Amino acid sequence: MKIAIAQLNPTIGDLPKNAQNILNAAHWAVTKGARLLLTPELSLCGYPPRDLLLNPGFVQSMDITLRQLARDLPPKLAVLVGTVEENLKAHLTGSKPLFNSIALLEQGSVQRVFHKRLLPTYDVFDENRYFEPGLQANYFTLDNLNIGVTICEDLWNDEEFWGKRSYTTNPIADLAILGVDLTLNLSASPYTVSKQRFRETMLKHSAVRFRQPIIYANQIGGNDDLIFDGCSFALNSQGEIVCRLRAFKTDLQIVEFDEVQQNLPMGSVVPTFDSEDEEIWHALVLGLGDYIRKSSFSKVVLGLSGGVDSSLVAAIATAALGKENVFGVLMPSPHSSDHSISDALALAQNLGIKTTTLPIGELMQGYDKTLAELFAGTEFGLTEENIQSRIRGNLLMAISNKFGYLLLSTGNKSEMAVGYCTLYGDMNGGLAAISDVPKTRVYSLCRWLNNHPSLSGLLKPQAIPTEIIPQNVITKAPSAELKPGQVDQDSLPPYDILDDILQRLINNYQSAAQIVAAAHDPKVVERVIQMVARAEFKRRQAPPGLKITDRAFGTGWRMPIASNWIAVNNTYQKKNSSTLAR
Amino acid sequence: MKIAIAQLNPTIGDLPKNAQNILNAAHWAVTKGARLLLTPELSLCGYPPRDLLLNPGFVQSMDITLRQLARDLPPKLAVLVGTVEENLKAHLTGSKPLFNSIALLEQGSVQRVFHKRLLPTYDVFDENRYFEPGLQANYFTLDNLNIGVTICEDLWNDEEFWGKRSYTTNPIADLAILGVDLTLNLSASPYTVSKQRFRETMLKHSAVRFRQPIIYANQIGGNDDLIFDGCSFALNSQGEIVCRLRAFKTDLQIVEFDEVQQNLPMGSVVPTFDSEDEEIWHALVLGLGDYIRKSSFSKVVLGLSGGVDSSLVAAIATAALGKENVFGVLMPSPHSSDHSISDALALAQNLGIKTTTLPIGELMQGYDKTLAELFAGTEFGLTEENIQSRIRGNLLMAISNKFGYLLLSTGNKSEMAVGYCTLYGDMNGGLAAISDVPKTRVYSLCRWLNNHPSLSGLLKPQAIPTEIIPQNVITKAPSAELKPGQVDQDSLPPYDILDDILQRLINNYQSAAQIVAAAHDPKVVERVIQMVARAEFKRRQAPPGLKITDRAFGTGWRMPIASNWIAVNNTYQKKNSSTLAR
Repeated sequence: MKIAIAQLNPTIGDLPKNAQNILNAAHWAVTKGARLLLTPELSLCGYPPRDLLLNPGFVQSMDITLRQLARDLPPKLAVLVGTVEENLKAHLTGSKPLFNSIALLEQGSVQRVFHKRLLPTYDVFDENRYFEPGLQANYFTLDNLNIGVTICEDLWNDEEFWGKRSYTTNPIADLAILGVDLTLNLSASPYTVSKQRFRETMLKHSAVRFRQPIIYANQIGGNDDLIFDGCSFALNSQGEIVCRLRAFKTDLQIVEFDEVQQNLPMGSVVPTFDSEDEEIWHALVLGLGDYIRKSSFSKVVLGLSGGVDSSLVAAIATAALGKENVFGVLMPSPHSSDHSISDALALAQNLGIKTTTLPIGELMQGYDKTLAELFAGTEFGLTEENIQSRIRGNLLMAISNKFGYLLLSTGNKSEMAVGYCTLYGDMNGGLAAISDVPKTRVYSLCRWLNNHPSLSGLLKPQAIPTEIIPQNVITKAPSAELKPGQVDQDSLPPYDILDDILQRLINNYQSAAQIVAAAHDPKVVERVIQMVARAEFKRRQAPPGLKITDRAFGTGWRMPIASNWIAVNNTYQKKNSSTLAR
Repeated sequence: MKIAIAQLNPTIGDLPKNAQNILNAAHWAVTKGARLLLTPELSLCGYPPRDLLLNPGFVQSMDITLRQLARDLPPKLAVLVGTVEENLKAHLTGSKPLFNSIALLEQGSVQRVFHKRLLPTYDVFDENRYFEPGLQANYFTLDNLNIGVTICEDLWNDEEFWGKRSYTTNPIADLAILGVDLTLNLSASPYTVSKQRFRETMLKHSAVRFRQPIIYANQIGGNDDLIFDGCSFALNSQGEIVCRLRAFKTDLQIVEFDEVQQNLPMGSVVPTFDSEDEEIWHALVLGLGDYIRKSSFSKVVLGLSGGVDSSLVAAIATAALGKENVFGVLMPSPHSSDHSISDALALAQNLGIKTTTLPIGELMQGYDKTLAELFAGTEFGLTEENIQSRIRGNLLMAISNKFGYLLLSTGNKSEMAVGYCTLYGDMNGGLAAISDVPKTRVYSLCRWLNNHPSLSGLLKPQAIPTEIIPQNVITKAPSAELKPGQVDQDSLPPYDILDDILQRLINNYQSAAQIVAAAHDPKVVERVIQMVARAEFKRRQAPPGLKITDRAFGTGWRMPIASNWIAVNNTYQKKNSSTLAR
């Protein structure tokens, strides 16, 4: 039996377009002789639909669209479509109103509906907010083949692999007991660095343990902060990869199930990337491009400071949208160095993007004059530094508004973490392209880009490889250039130290004591922890940022602001006062 | 038996301070002869602690603090403290790592721990993200009295009252079967308009149905977007209110259980408010004041436009923080009317707050000049309007940075809904004080304030009542004054129509067809729905806003941005093209 995988890129909520893409994939599958077509989790509405699911009209439209799609599909092709089903007994049983579902469409109608059993409710996932878990093992029989159906998280609870359980049940174990011939997994699994290797290792364990082939079909595309990498793949019952689809691209592929061998023979296997930098580069290019396109924009604007962050973002945007759709703005102040201009112009030339230069000195004087009386007797400080950043933010938004270009903000994760950025200034933008990329990774991405320009999509295939990020951008000391002679390390620990502390604190949930035990200076650790806590109010107002790590600031980071928890020196000792604070 | 209710105002994560406040309440309770002290849900860390719970060090500190508090408490007083308990079997059973718990402290140690059974995961609530539900009915025996313990949501699933179930179990029914003498409910139930009446009606139903007294202890205080109103109360087994604590204030009260009557006799009942406007006013005063104080600020700054929104916010801030802690900034442009200045100054005089005036005309010219070449041949439009708003936003942030005043933004819910506001301009601020208050409610609050100045907390008790919001602010046509002769109704439907459509769309989840059926113009409805969808990117970057309705923009509003769901004219019809969009 030939089984087609449609690795699709849905737009959230765009039911007509998503349905049409499923229909097109089905026609392709028929030409290839397929009997069954797989599409990703929630392929009809795109993942994650979030609070659109609370809109009864939305759920109703999905149902109408699904039934119309069933009528339009080639009748002899069985198609698995990701959709939601209403839980009609919700009010009687006290359960959630929807099921995250896979519908089996065939012969013009909905034949079966399967419910997702394990509902992720952590990090960026909120599935318990909307969905009731399915209670039954899901399978169906097609041409005498017994096919198990699982949805994304359903395969992420193998207690042997993890050494622990995250849910009570393990759906693939239930299917194995029922004796299915193969197991499908229809996913919308967001990208994080090296996750594909983890997925393959994990599902290999399940394939071997339960002695069955697994076909994993993943969504691709950027949806707000989340990037879905695709990389759909199939494992035979020995746990060998027999098929892998492209990363970060829409793709279609056929997997053949051999009824005699009861297994999947070797097929087309797209290789994985050689380095994390290459993988992250392509993730960011997809995430940025899709955010722009799915927001109905085509062009972007960004400030070019001659620094490494804005240079990288400009390069990503150029790869995603084409050089004619990226506009760079240089906004020198009296504190700007000469190289801030020359480096930015060199970068723009390398990328082939247009720029304009808008000096901000006169506007700085304008603010100084307007505020002179009120600020009389005060000294130049953070306020005046922020004014510069906000003048630039205002100019960039004016260009965005005037020409309909989406503004990209260029802050990295290290500065977002410690608040080394100006709210309503350099934080301005519709998308924070690298806000989950630590500064040390920004550097390594720039070096990778210069070493592998031909892999970046920035050059025509026949072009002679050349430097893309000017060398001086990478080698000079990073600086915000908001006062004379300023460099980042006046205010922050060296970035290799800062990023290691942040990784431990944010991604590894380590305590101050644990971080200090890893040979970090206790004073530096304490200071970083306090900076992270105090910058929460800025992060709350940040644009969506593309998630590439297992813990990003954004929809999966839900911290209180007006709070007082500092993980150091916070010990209760009773006081004798008996006055109740009112 | 005398039972003390401590209606406390915790700061999120401030374990030492929260523990000390519980200790102080315990000493008070002992002086009143109490045997048992109730504190709200999660009283040790404050509700909601959100992702602080993911920090193992935080959970460990709570445990240490709880045990130390147990040792410090008067030994013969039983005290119920809200805390979390680790779920030690989580990895074995595949359950969540924590329980939302109540600890019974007595004789220097933790005697019992009870687990919350119904975990809200909707709107602003994310309890399934952190907690495993308790499976057992919770009760304990104290001096021969059998006392049932429930935590907040545990009492919100009476299927007779609701006509449906939201959870499988009803904890109070389980307790009734076990024959408890009374049921406690320890809550952190956020305020929304008229919710107290609803709570009392609901729990009255349960008291009567299960023939038992109920004592409900609620948290008070503002925590980021959420305002907790307190209003703790007790019902006898006939469902009569026998005790009610103050709204929006820390409070302590004794309820006596009569062992002979097996009931609660009549005690101290604080009356409820006379009007929704009065209630909302006090909610906003508390929410604003606590946000400032718990963020370690004491003073605020805001722009005064002479309009009704900034006037109301200035009045709320003055009531919350005192007139010496509110600083108003007038920033007239060449498009500003004379009355924008005179009305703002009259308001400031009525409130007794200081102001400064910073004309922005020159800065507008500065931006025009800087952008002249780039914008040559384009016309004055939204871009130039936004520049004005962003100049003001920049000046206000400069004052905020320079003097350490927290900036308040003054946008109302109607404009936040349709995007009639400038990102990085008038949306700037640490707190959006009235972003959940529809424009029509802004007017009614201003009228209420003028009619009841003595109830507002703005006047000294002996002062002669006087107008607070200048009459002209209320009667003139609302205008952003960003171009000559502009009024809001050039761009928006009349506010009474707009607010009714928004209430139906946002709070009542109605479809376009349902809203049209309520006698609204279909074209207007379609336009409003599209404006709401398109403004999502602005709302994502808005400051936290005080929630007063059952559906606010903020932590409980989780919409995709780069999406395409418009609830009108979005019908799938297959196209004959068979090209797959890649």
